[in-house]
Amino acid sequence: ETTLLNDDFSLENLLDNWQTLTHAQREEVFAMLGRIDQEELFINLSSDYQAEIFEQIPHGEKRSWIRLLAPDDIADLIQNLGEETQAEALRYLDYATLVEVKALLAYAEDEAGGLMNSRFARLRPEMTVEEAIRYLRAQSKSQIETIYYAYVLDRTQMLLGVISLRELFLAKAGSTVQENMNTDLVTVLQDEDQESISKTFSNHNFLAIPVVDENNVMKGIITVDDVVEVIEEEATEDIHKIGGMEALGEPYLDISLPSMIKKRAGWLMALFVGEMFTATAMSHYEHDIAKAVVLALFIPLVISSGGNSGSQATTLIIRAMALGEVRLKDWWRVFSRELVSGLSLGVILGLIGLLRILLWPGKETLYGEHYMLVALSVSFSLVGIVLWGTLAGSMLPFFLRRIGLDPATSSAPFVATLVDVTGLVIYFTVASLFLKGILL
Amino acid sequence: ETTLLNDDFSLENLLDNWQTLTHAQREEVFAMLGRIDQEELFINLSSDYQAEIFEQIPHGEKRSWIRLLAPDDIADLIQNLGEETQAEALRYLDYATLVEVKALLAYAEDEAGGLMNSRFARLRPEMTVEEAIRYLRAQSKSQIETIYYAYVLDRTQMLLGVISLRELFLAKAGSTVQENMNTDLVTVLQDEDQESISKTFSNHNFLAIPVVDENNVMKGIITVDDVVEVIEEEATEDIHKIGGMEALGEPYLDISLPSMIKKRAGWLMALFVGEMFTATAMSHYEHDIAKAVVLALFIPLVISSGGNSGSQATTLIIRAMALGEVRLKDWWRVFSRELVSGLSLGVILGLIGLLRILLWPGKETLYGEHYMLVALSVSFSLVGIVLWGTLAGSMLPFFLRRIGLDPATSSAPFVATLVDVTGLVIYFTVASLFLKGILL
Ligand SMILES: [Mg+2]
Ligand SMILES: [Mg+2]
Ligand SMILES: [Mg+2]
Ligand SMILES: [Mg+2]
Ligand SMILES: [Mg+2]
Ligand SMILES: [Mg+2]
Ligand SMILES: [Mg+2]
Ligand SMILES: [Mg+2]
Ligand SMILES: [Mg+2]
Ligand SMILES: [Mg+2]
Ligand SMILES: [Mg+2]
Ligand SMILES: [Mg+2]
Ligand SMILES: [Mg+2]
Repeated sequence: ETTLLNDDFSLENLLDNWQTLTHAQREEVFAMLGRIDQEELFINLSSDYQAEIFEQIPHGEKRSWIRLLAPDDIADLIQNLGEETQAEALRYLDYATLVEVKALLAYAEDEAGGLMNSRFARLRPEMTVEEAIRYLRAQSKSQIETIYYAYVLDRTQMLLGVISLRELFLAKAGSTVQENMNTDLVTVLQDEDQESISKTFSNHNFLAIPVVDENNVMKGIITVDDVVEVIEEEATEDIHKIGGMEALGEPYLDISLPSMIKKRAGWLMALFVGEMFTATAMSHYEHDIAKAVVLALFIPLVISSGGNSGSQATTLIIRAMALGEVRLKDWWRVFSRELVSGLSLGVILGLIGLLRILLWPGKETLYGEHYMLVALSVSFSLVGIVLWGTLAGSMLPFFLRRIGLDPATSSAPFVATLVDVTGLVIYFTVASLFLKGILL
Repeated sequence: ETTLLNDDFSLENLLDNWQTLTHAQREEVFAMLGRIDQEELFINLSSDYQAEIFEQIPHGEKRSWIRLLAPDDIADLIQNLGEETQAEALRYLDYATLVEVKALLAYAEDEAGGLMNSRFARLRPEMTVEEAIRYLRAQSKSQIETIYYAYVLDRTQMLLGVISLRELFLAKAGSTVQENMNTDLVTVLQDEDQESISKTFSNHNFLAIPVVDENNVMKGIITVDDVVEVIEEEATEDIHKIGGMEALGEPYLDISLPSMIKKRAGWLMALFVGEMFTATAMSHYEHDIAKAVVLALFIPLVISSGGNSGSQATTLIIRAMALGEVRLKDWWRVFSRELVSGLSLGVILGLIGLLRILLWPGKETLYGEHYMLVALSVSFSLVGIVLWGTLAGSMLPFFLRRIGLDPATSSAPFVATLVDVTGLVIYFTVASLFLKGILL
C-alpha cells in the first residue's frame, strides 16, 4: 500500500519512512519513481537499503548505479551484498576506485578504517595560503568528502597539521600553510573501535577527525554525520543486551522471524536454566513451606524486589560505562554509592512490606496468629535482598569488563535471575531466624 | 588526586576525563592550569561543567569568562546556573548579545530553539556568486557558527534557499545566488523536540539544518555536533527508563545521592505495590499450595520466564519506536510477529521445563508420584506465560504512546511485575486442569 507514504514521494518523506515499509513495498515505491528521484534516494539511503536496491536492479544497469557512490560508500554497500553480487559489483569499478575500495574492504565495518572516507583535501606545508585556497577551490568539483578541512601532509603522507578554509581566509597574505596550520591534533588509529571514536566526537565538537596508522600516515577522514549512525547503533546494541537478548543488528520489522527468535531464544534459555536453581533452592525449603504455607505467599513479592533494584543498578552502570562517565577503577566509588542506595531502598521497601502485612484487613485469618513474625521476616529479608540486588547489579558490569566481556551482557533479566536464586536463600534464612520453633 | 589524569594535562585528556573527576578534583585541576589552557578547556566543556566553573570564578573575573562564549552557549550556560548567578551573568553581557541570549532563553533546552545558534551566514538572492564568496570570506572573522553553509533570506528574513561555499566555488561566474541555491529544503520548526530533530539528522546526512518559525522566517542553525550529545542524552533517558527508574538527567558520579535515590525509589515503590498483588493472588491458591507443596517449587521459575520474555519484547519495541523503525500504526504487524515469537519461545521453554522435571534424578521423591502431571502443568503454563509476557511486553509501548505517554515507561521491571501477577493465575489455572481431583 503506497498510502503508507500518504502519496508524498518527496525525498524527505521517502527517507523518513523507508525503514517502516516492507521489502515488497520498498520495491514497489522504488519502481514508481523516475530515474533522478531513484538516484537521489539511492545515494541518501544507508548501505543496507542500498544493497537491497542494488540486488534487485537488472545486471546491465548495476554499473551505472554503483558509480554514483564514493569509495567508502561502495565499500559499505559491498559489505552488505550477497557473495555473488559482491564479485559482480567489484567488476563494475574503474581501476583507481577498485584499488581504493579494496583497501577499505580490508577494514572491519565497525573500526575507524571502515567508517572513513579515503578522499580528503591534502595540502603541502610550504604552499602559501593563496595557493592553498586556489587549490581547494579547484578541488570543489572532485569527489573529496569536504573542502572545509584540509590536511597538511609531508611527502611520505605523514599528517603534519590541519587547517580550515575559514582559517585560510583569515591568514596573513603571503604566509604559508605551515605557519597557519593547527598541529595540536586529535586523530584516531585506523583500527580503533567505533565506540571509542564516537566518544572522541562527543567529547570534542569536531566535524571531522583524521584517521592515521601507527606511523601517523594519514588514511582518511571520519565525519560527524557518520558517527550519528554509530552512536545510535551502539546504543541500540546496548539496549537490546540490557533487555536480555543478543543485539538484533537489523531493524525490528526487517529482521527475519527465525533470526529474531534465535537471538532471543539463546538468552531466554540460558536465563531459564539459571532460574531452575530456584526450584532446587525451593525444594530445600519444601518442608518449611509445608509447615508454613503463609511463607510461600510472599515469595514472588520478595524476590522480585531484588530483581527490580538489581535491574536499576546494572542499567545505570552499563550506561555510565558506555558514556565514559565511570571507568573500571571507579568501582569502589560506585560500590560505596550503591551500598548507601541499596540500604536506603531496602529500608523503604521493607517498611512498606511491613505495613502491607500489619495493616491488611483480616491479617490473622490470612497470615495466621504469628502474622507479626511473618511481617518481620518479609521486611528484614527485603532489606537484605534489595541491598544484595543493588550491589550485585552494580558490580557485575565491572566484573564483566574486567574479564574482557561486554558490561551490557549484565542485563536486567540476568541480574534478576541471579537475585531470584540467592533471594530465596536470604528469605528462608531470615524467616527461620524469626520463626524457628514457632511455625518452622 | 591529580594522578587520576596521569599527569597529562593536554586538552584532549582533560576533556576525555573531566566527567570522571569529582567536583573537588575538577576544581583542583582547573586551578593548576594557566589562563590560556583554562579558557580552552572552558570553551570546550559541556554547559553543565561550564556552569560549575563559572560559579566558582571570582565575581570580578566572571565578565571576561562569559564573553568567551557564543550566544547559544551563553544561553545554555545560564540555564545551568543558580538563580543568583543567572542574574549576575546577564549583567555582564553587552546589549546586542543580551538581546540574542534573552531570545534564546525563551526556548526550552530540548527544543530546536534551545539547540540552535542564532549567528549564521546570510546571503541575499540577488547577489552574484563572486559577491557572495567575498562576503562570506569577510565573515570569516565574525562569530557566526559556520561559513560553509550560507542561508539565502529575503528582506523579511524568510528562508529562500541554502548554498554551500563549495557550490559557490563551482557556480558559473556572473550568475546569482538565486540561480544556484538549493530550494528543496529540510528545515525544523523552532519548537520541534530534540528527539525528532535527531531523527532528521540521522535520516539525512546533513551537517547543519536551519530552524524556522511558522512563517518560514529563519531563526538559527543546528549543527550535527550538537545533535551527537542529544542522541546520547535521549538514549540514556530511554535506557534509564527501561531499567525501571526515572532518567537521572546527570552523570552517575555527579548526581547527589539523595536525588539518585529519589529517582530510583519512586518506581521501585510503585513496582513493589504492583507486585503485592502476587501475595493476594497467592493467597487465593493457599489451599492448593498446602495440598500440593510441589507446585510452589516451580513458581519463581515459571513466572520469571514471563518477565524475561516480556522484557525482551518491550525493550525491542521501545527502541524500534525511538529509532522510528516502528510507528503507532504498525502495531498489528508487531502483534503478529510477537505472536509467532512468543509461541515459539514458549514452546522452547516449555519443552526444557518438561525435560528438566522428567529427567531429574529422584524426581519421584522430590516431586511425588504424580511428577508427570506436575511436569505437564509447568510445561503448559510456560507456553501460556511466555506468550502472554511477549504480547504484553510488545503491546504496552503502543498503548502508552497511544495515550500520550513515553513508551519507554513500559520498563522491563514494569512488564515483569505485570506478568508475575497474571503468570500466577495462569500457572494455578493450568495446574488445576491437570491435577484437579488428583493432587488438588
Ligand atoms: Mg560517506
Ligand atoms: Mg565502511
Ligand atoms: Mg560535544
Ligand atoms: Mg563521511
Ligand atoms: Mg560495537
Ligand atoms: Mg557496545
Ligand atoms: Mg522476576
Ligand atoms: Mg554552539
Ligand atoms: Mg541552548
Ligand atoms: Mg545518515
Ligand atoms: Mg552548533
Ligand atoms: Mg527527551
Ligand atoms: Mg525519549
